[in-house]
Amino acid sequence: MKEIMQLKNYMANPITPVEQLEQNKDDMKTQMELLIMRIQAEFCRALEKEEDKAWEDEKSVEDYDFDNDVYMTWPEAKFTVDRWTRKEGGGGITCVLQDGRVFEKAGVNISVVSGKLPPAAIQQMRSRGKNLQNAELPFFAAGVSAVIHPRNPMVPTIHFNYRYFEVQDKDGVQWWFGGGTDLTPYYLNEDDALHFHLTLKHACDDHDSSYYARFKKWCDDYFYIPHRGERRGVGGIFFDDLDTPNQQAAFAFVTSCAEAVIPSYVPLVKKHKDDAYGYHERQWQLLRRGRYVEFNLIYDRGTKFGLHTPEARYESILMSLPLNAKWEYMHQVQPNSEEEKLLKILKEPKDWLQIEDKKRSNA
Amino acid sequence: MKEIMQLKNYMANPITPVEQLEQNKDDMKTQMELLIMRIQAEFCRALEKEEDKAWEDEKSVEDYDFDNDVYMTWPEAKFTVDRWTRKEGGGGITCVLQDGRVFEKAGVNISVVSGKLPPAAIQQMRSRGKNLQNAELPFFAAGVSAVIHPRNPMVPTIHFNYRYFEVQDKDGVQWWFGGGTDLTPYYLNEDDALHFHLTLKHACDDHDSSYYARFKKWCDDYFYIPHRGERRGVGGIFFDDLDTPNQQAAFAFVTSCAEAVIPSYVPLVKKHKDDAYGYHERQWQLLRRGRYVEFNLIYDRGTKFGLHTPEARYESILMSLPLNAKWEYMHQVQPNSEEEKLLKILKEPKDWLQIEDKKRSNA
Repeated sequence: MKEIMQLKNYMANPITPVEQLEQNKDDMKTQMELLIMRIQAEFCRALEKEEDKAWEDEKSVEDYDFDNDVYMTWPEAKFTVDRWTRKEGGGGITCVLQDGRVFEKAGVNISVVSGKLPPAAIQQMRSRGKNLQNAELPFFAAGVSAVIHPRNPMVPTIHFNYRYFEVQDKDGVQWWFGGGTDLTPYYLNEDDALHFHLTLKHACDDHDSSYYARFKKWCDDYFYIPHRGERRGVGGIFFDDLDTPNQQAAFAFVTSCAEAVIPSYVPLVKKHKDDAYGYHERQWQLLRRGRYVEFNLIYDRGTKFGLHTPEARYESILMSLPLNAKWEYMHQVQPNSEEEKLLKILKEPKDWLQIEDKKRSNA
Repeated sequence: MKEIMQLKNYMANPITPVEQLEQNKDDMKTQMELLIMRIQAEFCRALEKEEDKAWEDEKSVEDYDFDNDVYMTWPEAKFTVDRWTRKEGGGGITCVLQDGRVFEKAGVNISVVSGKLPPAAIQQMRSRGKNLQNAELPFFAAGVSAVIHPRNPMVPTIHFNYRYFEVQDKDGVQWWFGGGTDLTPYYLNEDDALHFHLTLKHACDDHDSSYYARFKKWCDDYFYIPHRGERRGVGGIFFDDLDTPNQQAAFAFVTSCAEAVIPSYVPLVKKHKDDAYGYHERQWQLLRRGRYVEFNLIYDRGTKFGLHTPEARYESILMSLPLNAKWEYMHQVQPNSEEEKLLKILKEPKDWLQIEDKKRSNA
């Protein structure tokens, strides 16, 4: 289950000095940092591959580098890599691909930070049931998070985030994992939603047969925009404060979830990236991206927590926002349209894999 | 100082039944409702006039209505008027002009609401120093608010809001006024900023010579985006909890402020609406509109209060959002560019009328 260091494959050097990682191979902090480094690199490469294919058709003799006998690459087709550090400890690697052919804006971020948690953050954790002293406490957090906004409105947006947290108080170290993967389509394709949920369910089932149903509901409840009475998308899984059955088993579960991102999503990109669409579909996509902004800026706990942290790297937090978004006053969808079909699902989440239905018929 | 009812000029019928308004002419609730009805109508008409002029050039014989011997009007050039009511009491009139020639999105809203304030809202007022019982209390609120996002990036966005509040507890009724007007340019024109601030200062000076300096600073402090270290724009005035020197005098001050909106802003629209601009300036405008969304959704007290109110009319609250906005990862302005000139002022607000400088030289 232990991660192996793959320095040459990562998007940049790990945040923690390599010698320190080597000396603490068995520490979960090291294991998690190596996992998120690997997941970030694998996901970025998988998306770049789709960009490369899209630019392929554009190749002309002018793009040929005769000296090196290769075609030149387009800077828009590659992730820019920003490795940053924090005064207080740790840092992150933010990879963004903007204005590509397939992806309008794709952000994949890892962060590995440590320091002292302010009392307000501790208070928030206590309110979630954590038994922690009410004081400034040392913490460690490592996580990967990504939001991919494709150009074609027939390709859904995906978001995922997997994180590991440690807080130290007088009674010792408390640790837990959190995370999730969720899908936000602009047009509902039931096969896509099924494929996505099924891939996540398989990742869950290998670890605990109750996880998928619980974490699917948690996801529907979390990505909710109360003022509109809508979910952000068709859901997925979401969980927090996971510290059972033990650290290695929880890490194995998180690893499976993170490894399920590519198979859950990239097939949908391949399938729809060349679908036909026009002005109407683009406008709808922009309006839905406005809803995405509403959720992230008003309700998302991670964004709020991040922006209220002193010295936060706001560019990495706000990379989740779409390149373009739109707000129309009193926008109405046409009855029986494809847009209305999506809205219905957002207002009433579906039991995609009929888990509840099956439970009922078995009862 | 008393407002006169001008039924035929308003955008719609007042929210409070006309007979009730007539019977309570001297009540501040009536005075305020009639003020905001008038301000809404005057402002909407003034903006429509600018739209009409812009559409004028497009007129062709096909647009002539021979039966009625007039040119037809374009629906995009007029405000749509939505009069809405709340189950709990009161309602509002939301006027929006979207996708016009001069204005990309213009929203002018009035609301007149009453009911019971939830304990959380009372708590918030108590934290601002109000001496109120800690219970569910009857309240009344009437206000006008507007956000105008013009199409041309050389024309600034304006926002204003003027409101009157009453809360009743066992010791009687407490009342206060709040509000302000502020300007958000995309390109800094110092003459415009001076004209804007000077117009507001004149409105203030007629009532209290200390108001402008105090309320200018309050505005700079309020419209602040902490994570970016920027103000939203070049400021204006902002105040809350105003209950001095007496109700009629405070109302007279608010009336002057509300009446200053047109002279502070419409000349800037006329001056710049046909200024030349291109792709570059439009992109910058869209990025700045992204910042506007960030402020409104993350920090604005009014938006937060509104969206967390059960049964809130979210379309009226979110009409302040621009039609289009953009977020680029790590956007950088060119050194010594016009964009940088604006950013400098947003990071360090200017004493436009050199009030502080003069104070210092007189001391």
